[in-house]
Amino acid sequence: MTTVLDINADMGEGFGPWLIGEGVDDEIMALISSANIATGFHAGDPSTMVHSLREAGRHGVAVGAHPGFRDLVGFGRRHINASPEELVNDVLYQLGALRELARREGQTLHHLKLHGALFMHAARDEAFAVQLCEALVASGTDLPIYCLVDSVLDRVARQAGLRSVHEFYADRDYDDNGSIVFVRQVARRDPEQVAAKVLLAVTEGVVESINGKRVTVSCDSVCLHSDSPGALDMLKAIRRRLDEAGIAVQTV
Amino acid sequence: MTTVLDINADMGEGFGPWLIGEGVDDEIMALISSANIATGFHAGDPSTMVHSLREAGRHGVAVGAHPGFRDLVGFGRRHINASPEELVNDVLYQLGALRELARREGQTLHHLKLHGALFMHAARDEAFAVQLCEALVASGTDLPIYCLVDSVLDRVARQAGLRSVHEFYADRDYDDNGSIVFVRQVARRDPEQVAAKVLLAVTEGVVESINGKRVTVSCDSVCLHSDSPGALDMLKAIRRRLDEAGIAVQTV
Amino acid sequence: MTTVLDINADMGEGFGPWLIGEGVDDEIMALISSANIATGFHAGDPSTMVHSLREAGRHGVAVGAHPGFRDLVGFGRRHINASPEELVNDVLYQLGALRELARREGQTLHHLKLHGALFMHAARDEAFAVQLCEALVASGTDLPIYCLVDSVLDRVARQAGLRSVHEFYADRDYDDNGSIVFVRQVARRDPEQVAAKVLLAVTEGVVESINGKRVTVSCDSVCLHSDSPGALDMLKAIRRRLDEAGIAVQTV
Amino acid sequence: MTTVLDINADMGEGFGPWLIGEGVDDEIMALISSANIATGFHAGDPSTMVHSLREAGRHGVAVGAHPGFRDLVGFGRRHINASPEELVNDVLYQLGALRELARREGQTLHHLKLHGALFMHAARDEAFAVQLCEALVASGTDLPIYCLVDSVLDRVARQAGLRSVHEFYADRDYDDNGSIVFVRQVARRDPEQVAAKVLLAVTEGVVESINGKRVTVSCDSVCLHSDSPGALDMLKAIRRRLDEAGIAVQTV
Repeated sequence: MTTVLDINADMGEGFGPWLIGEGVDDEIMALISSANIATGFHAGDPSTMVHSLREAGRHGVAVGAHPGFRDLVGFGRRHINASPEELVNDVLYQLGALRELARREGQTLHHLKLHGALFMHAARDEAFAVQLCEALVASGTDLPIYCLVDSVLDRVARQAGLRSVHEFYADRDYDDNGSIVFVRQVARRDPEQVAAKVLLAVTEGVVESINGKRVTVSCDSVCLHSDSPGALDMLKAIRRRLDEAGIAVQTV
Repeated sequence: MTTVLDINADMGEGFGPWLIGEGVDDEIMALISSANIATGFHAGDPSTMVHSLREAGRHGVAVGAHPGFRDLVGFGRRHINASPEELVNDVLYQLGALRELARREGQTLHHLKLHGALFMHAARDEAFAVQLCEALVASGTDLPIYCLVDSVLDRVARQAGLRSVHEFYADRDYDDNGSIVFVRQVARRDPEQVAAKVLLAVTEGVVESINGKRVTVSCDSVCLHSDSPGALDMLKAIRRRLDEAGIAVQTV
Repeated sequence: MTTVLDINADMGEGFGPWLIGEGVDDEIMALISSANIATGFHAGDPSTMVHSLREAGRHGVAVGAHPGFRDLVGFGRRHINASPEELVNDVLYQLGALRELARREGQTLHHLKLHGALFMHAARDEAFAVQLCEALVASGTDLPIYCLVDSVLDRVARQAGLRSVHEFYADRDYDDNGSIVFVRQVARRDPEQVAAKVLLAVTEGVVESINGKRVTVSCDSVCLHSDSPGALDMLKAIRRRLDEAGIAVQTV
Repeated sequence: MTTVLDINADMGEGFGPWLIGEGVDDEIMALISSANIATGFHAGDPSTMVHSLREAGRHGVAVGAHPGFRDLVGFGRRHINASPEELVNDVLYQLGALRELARREGQTLHHLKLHGALFMHAARDEAFAVQLCEALVASGTDLPIYCLVDSVLDRVARQAGLRSVHEFYADRDYDDNGSIVFVRQVARRDPEQVAAKVLLAVTEGVVESINGKRVTVSCDSVCLHSDSPGALDMLKAIRRRLDEAGIAVQTV
């Protein structure tokens, strides 16, 4: 029986004067167990990163690097046709930047999760996934990698001896194949329905698809997008429901 | 009697398609003992950094982080009125980025040298120098810091228990107080004169000022700017003269 | 007797995924007569600029260029030690970019207002102010310049035959000399008090200083910072009060 | 019989401290009739743009805007998966920036040529080409568009009533279909062979393919890439050969 669950969210996705979404990062931090901290290329300047690290530290939240494409204006959501070599270098650069800032705070990195279009690229592109895992192994970085179940990165990471963590997306719809339905505009959802969905995924390993079918899903960690409308309310409902079910929230 | 001397140069100060100066970084790398590698904010994208790390590795050159102001267009030569906190965060971010890339290559960081206007800022600004050194100490980063002798950073670093390395500038003029004469446009210099100047500084600890006066100088490391006109010829002349004097080139 | 008043606000100060302040630009646009549209260097990507232009067009609001230092992360609030030449080039670049986007919408530029630290730089630096005005005259750009009364730019612009527009800052405090009291954190203000302050400035040309003294002020245009907390409520109160006083809101 | 020929080259593709290729822009400017000036997103800061404008003015060279993807580190050579709307806004932004800088110099824009991956995108993507031409028409910008013959942009521009200018690439190879053979690394070429190739294209409208076949080509303008190795020598040879054939170099 499941007694613990990891909840992760992207944190620090502002830049300079700007905050993402509803500006409720600090409130969200209090309710999750793993924070994916933006590392500067799609969002997240050094001082914003430090702020997120400190908030995570205050709440005992595990911190992971959340690198993306070099694309501030597109928030790392636009694919850039870069070589695997340069993308791996970009990821290491960002990972190391966060690691150094964490080191001063007395924190160590817990995981790696790619952002946006780079996350999707790694889920599909063999060359990038392989070179990324080789680089992580070469530098002794055996952090768990949050990724899509059965994606290229999932397989390649495991083959390389790295641990992959499968995410369940609380604020996204699933199709009959267990794949996420991507949408341009994320709609506001009923927090109680989202919470019920999470509980079902955690306890029974299934999700109800957009066609009403029960589909098997992996759920090593529940991901909630901090810039979804009503993110905070969804999180509160999830935490309440998990509490009632006697499931504690802690990182993987 | 001096038998060894460190020669340092800024390396990897290109960005994307661009190289700095005469594009002779790789030739310069073969002649120095310490490379200050640009870390992305004023120059140096991740792939350029990796190139420099590998060239350094090939030649047994020690690698240091060379962070600057976030100012590509101004090459980090323009002061930006930022708070000490954000500047320290910017430095750690860049330092960690290089450290991570070096780690994959099996290299460790050897030193820290600030770039351009940030180098000068640390030489003068107590708050920045103090907070920087506190941050380095807090994160256990006891790298030697290349800096101006008797500058604020020099003093603060030593007080913090960090090692400071005093540079002698082979391709700059000195005034009667032993201070560098700053110029907008660096002129091409006679390589043999530069080499003689270095030898004098190393063996006797003096430099001839622009007024012909012999002035005491510190010289833990000779700095040659890789974007000075004729940088490669100056380095070759220096190396030849040091060879003749039986002085080996190795890092501090 | 005053029967019309210009109200200006900075618009489009987001970047990519990010909005500034409370994200109420579109509501603010409905209540002002002149929009200072951020032009890309401190905020405002091209698509955000187009959005602001279209909203301005929909509401009959005059559009002006609002260029700043090249400093996204610092939101143009940090002074950069750049030469007058490069700053003038930066301003023209940004001004032209907005002009071209406006041209497609059938709109013409109405004014120029510098942003943040660049606004303050022009208020103090003779060389920059002179070269900027010379450039504007040389290119036949006789747009009114919004600026601080009696500042260097104010004087230089008038000497160059350009029109300067003096702003009154609704959401800032004034000292006994009629100068604005700069603060790091702008506090939320009572909308009715702000509205009363504007009416007093408009009708009698005075402001009550932080010491309770009545001080003479210029007020060709009321500036309300769109990222001040409660900006929208302040604007609504100002509009209501002006309506009651029979003063119409229109650009200069 | 052909008596005039346009030669165009990309100019000002440096950024801040960096120059492109062999740093011979100013020498190249003296030998061409049309300059495609980089406008800031892939290369070309405002001050570099002004330098290019002034050099063009000095030599009577027509100036065109050369906008690219927002991608300094990739020099605009990497495709970015952006929407047609945002790309059109990016192009207008850059075009207007150059137009404004030119205006101060008393120069007017003569043409538009997209750069790198954006050039190729417009050659293939109907939606982008259509929206770009609509935008140019809407803003009354009837500049000739330099493009690939028979490309999507070529066709769409003509349909929109805009003039397209077909380029012949002096420093590239052609296949049997008259298409350019793209290569990663551009090799140094014999200047006399390049010059002979240009003369053949200009006078007879044919090129010898890599398989030795004579293929028909369009040649409204000869493009020489200023960052090709030996660009300056190729240009000199071309000019000499054209002189001998009594063909004057002037813009279209």
